[in-house]
Amino acid sequence: MTLHTSWVASANDPKHPFPLNNLPYGVFSTDTLDPRCGVAIGDMILDCQRAEEAGLISLSDEPLFDVPFWNEVMEEGPELWAALRERLTQILAEGAPDRERAEPLLVAQADAEMHLPFLVAEYTDFYAGKHHAVNVGTMFRGAENALPPNWLHIPIGYNGRASSVVVSGTPVRRPWGQLKAPDAEVPEFAPCRRFDLELEMGAIVGQPSEGPVTVDEADEMIFGYVLLNDWSARDIQAWEYQPLGPFQAKATATSISPWIVTKAALAPFRCDTPPREKELLPHLKDTGPMLYDIDLAVTLAPAGKKATEIARTNYNEMYFSAAQQLAHHSTSGCPMTPGDLLGSGTISGAEKHQRGSLLELSWGGKEPITLDTGDERAFLLDGDTLTLTGAAHGEGYTIGFGTCSGTILEALADPYARS
Amino acid sequence: MTLHTSWVASANDPKHPFPLNNLPYGVFSTDTLDPRCGVAIGDMILDCQRAEEAGLISLSDEPLFDVPFWNEVMEEGPELWAALRERLTQILAEGAPDRERAEPLLVAQADAEMHLPFLVAEYTDFYAGKHHAVNVGTMFRGAENALPPNWLHIPIGYNGRASSVVVSGTPVRRPWGQLKAPDAEVPEFAPCRRFDLELEMGAIVGQPSEGPVTVDEADEMIFGYVLLNDWSARDIQAWEYQPLGPFQAKATATSISPWIVTKAALAPFRCDTPPREKELLPHLKDTGPMLYDIDLAVTLAPAGKKATEIARTNYNEMYFSAAQQLAHHSTSGCPMTPGDLLGSGTISGAEKHQRGSLLELSWGGKEPITLDTGDERAFLLDGDTLTLTGAAHGEGYTIGFGTCSGTILEALADPYARS
Repeated sequence: MTLHTSWVASANDPKHPFPLNNLPYGVFSTDTLDPRCGVAIGDMILDCQRAEEAGLISLSDEPLFDVPFWNEVMEEGPELWAALRERLTQILAEGAPDRERAEPLLVAQADAEMHLPFLVAEYTDFYAGKHHAVNVGTMFRGAENALPPNWLHIPIGYNGRASSVVVSGTPVRRPWGQLKAPDAEVPEFAPCRRFDLELEMGAIVGQPSEGPVTVDEADEMIFGYVLLNDWSARDIQAWEYQPLGPFQAKATATSISPWIVTKAALAPFRCDTPPREKELLPHLKDTGPMLYDIDLAVTLAPAGKKATEIARTNYNEMYFSAAQQLAHHSTSGCPMTPGDLLGSGTISGAEKHQRGSLLELSWGGKEPITLDTGDERAFLLDGDTLTLTGAAHGEGYTIGFGTCSGTILEALADPYARS
Repeated sequence: MTLHTSWVASANDPKHPFPLNNLPYGVFSTDTLDPRCGVAIGDMILDCQRAEEAGLISLSDEPLFDVPFWNEVMEEGPELWAALRERLTQILAEGAPDRERAEPLLVAQADAEMHLPFLVAEYTDFYAGKHHAVNVGTMFRGAENALPPNWLHIPIGYNGRASSVVVSGTPVRRPWGQLKAPDAEVPEFAPCRRFDLELEMGAIVGQPSEGPVTVDEADEMIFGYVLLNDWSARDIQAWEYQPLGPFQAKATATSISPWIVTKAALAPFRCDTPPREKELLPHLKDTGPMLYDIDLAVTLAPAGKKATEIARTNYNEMYFSAAQQLAHHSTSGCPMTPGDLLGSGTISGAEKHQRGSLLELSWGGKEPITLDTGDERAFLLDGDTLTLTGAAHGEGYTIGFGTCSGTILEALADPYARS
């Protein structure tokens, strides 16, 4: 596939993240427009609410865009997803007869504030990147016991907290929590000292299920993908996570990028998961390429200083695809809901610079990394801004995700003081 | 406190679960009435929607009862909660001037179908009953390492799956899942063989939070309590739960009783948590009695046979109260939402008959229990009906929870067959 050109000139730059081939879905507002659904095209956003009101988009009996979230579109299902993408492509393609009607409905991204693109029904976070699991396991249990016995057989996951999901740009307050230093007699209640990022992709479930679904069915249910940073309080986690898993360590915030890149836009970049080291049970075997070749990077900018790239990896490093994760998620009959968000798990590669968390980059804090500014980091400091980016590279075009960023605010002096 | 009498005669029986002192909140429908909010009084339900439409209840500018769930009342906050309870008491008290207007708005419970009383925002399940934790820990790690090091310092919990919460009476399908017998080389995908109940109480969060809340604030945020059965697939859990906790083992279903018993109704039954074995950090210390003296029982009825009581215990066995759990849940800044459901964790007592799960009652399946029917049970069989009941006993009156029951359906023959 090659670049599809648009009458929105900025979209035709081969390096622009939002060409006509992409058409990612977000929710935006401006000084004069309430939050509403929009589609990114080049540097602009097409206002879907006004486009529907004007009759430019007319795909269902009931309005789709009278609410500031994409869940209603998701609920309509794959046929409507395809029809909407086709219609948006028609409207925005070079030479489109609708240009005159559509042009007044464009808003500059520079003038827009982005909001969460969908109501997060429930949030699940997986642990399905092998390099990450091996790194963490080696640090905690030694190289010989790095991977738990179940790891190669099921995508290990835990339920996270949907209420803590925030859109890129939302500051993240360093949490307090109960911690215990390894040499301490008793725990203390204190601000987190080992606050970290996790570079992940998020898959958005667009269709419901009631019983177990196959991997193929799961792939059909997925609406799109976002970048995801699962902020993690390593010291809180170390004390709390046995025997029932992470809880408050992961509940402060999870940031996602504001644009949902649809499965359709990513179709040319499908790739296989890495070779299996143990044969999967039939219900988890993939039947075709369901992972994606998406370059990912993380930068860290200390307060008032320039950003350094601290990691660069690719979504194709995942051992399990989102479709496999969703299939596993449904095995027990767990009802899945449009708006469910599935975090991939931290995506690391084999090389040191490919590690998607400071825990791995600084090897548990023992080997701090040095930024281009000369600053050292074992874990995050107040004022640090973390930014995730992602892009799939086609022939003469790019499918970008925009950015997923967050700045660390200092912990509250007294978390129980009430103004 | 003594019995408050009502003009609904059945409510005045000292053993009836729903006297005027109780007034629990549910959602019901009948052959002619769509699902709507109602209040139980004796054997009847007062239809809140029609009571509001008729002007009998008029507490806010916007209608509270035009939706079939109690979340809108929760969101209004404690002042409205108190005003509503006062108004309902006025309407239903013996000698009430409103009797003539209210009586036509009563529906017999026998004619009503009950629904989930609230939209479950998110569901968290704790592990804060000490006898249960010691029993399970002893089975899995030996008596000397029964309690994890953190257990006495924080109420251990994990996020569950809100979409899997169902109302009492909903059948529960035995799940499939990935299992590995201890002596097996590889895992298999099969129906669960060790399906179990967990006797719990559920606390319903009625007010939101954005930062950490104190135990006192947490207690204020709680709207009411229900009985809760956290159905558990022990064999799926054993294979999946390391290192990130239970996932599919707990995602098939969690049943709750249909009536929310309010904090106000339970006020006379407040009691202290058991003495601390280790001093808690200040932010988790309770400042007064925040647990409740509520007798709990579980019966098991094999298909077509009579029920046997298999466990009897009391909510006052919990080591941590729901207020302490909610305070801990908020420490990281995790935003809490009206409609959040907090499972207490399995409630067991010190004696064998006080154990709230078959895992404990049959000691990991090694010592099956014998029912009054002569049947033996290590874990649940298809057709078994489990019923939880709960009641607080006042002077001449009872605050009952009704029942929380579910019948086990056989596993699907082929979970991927589509009709």
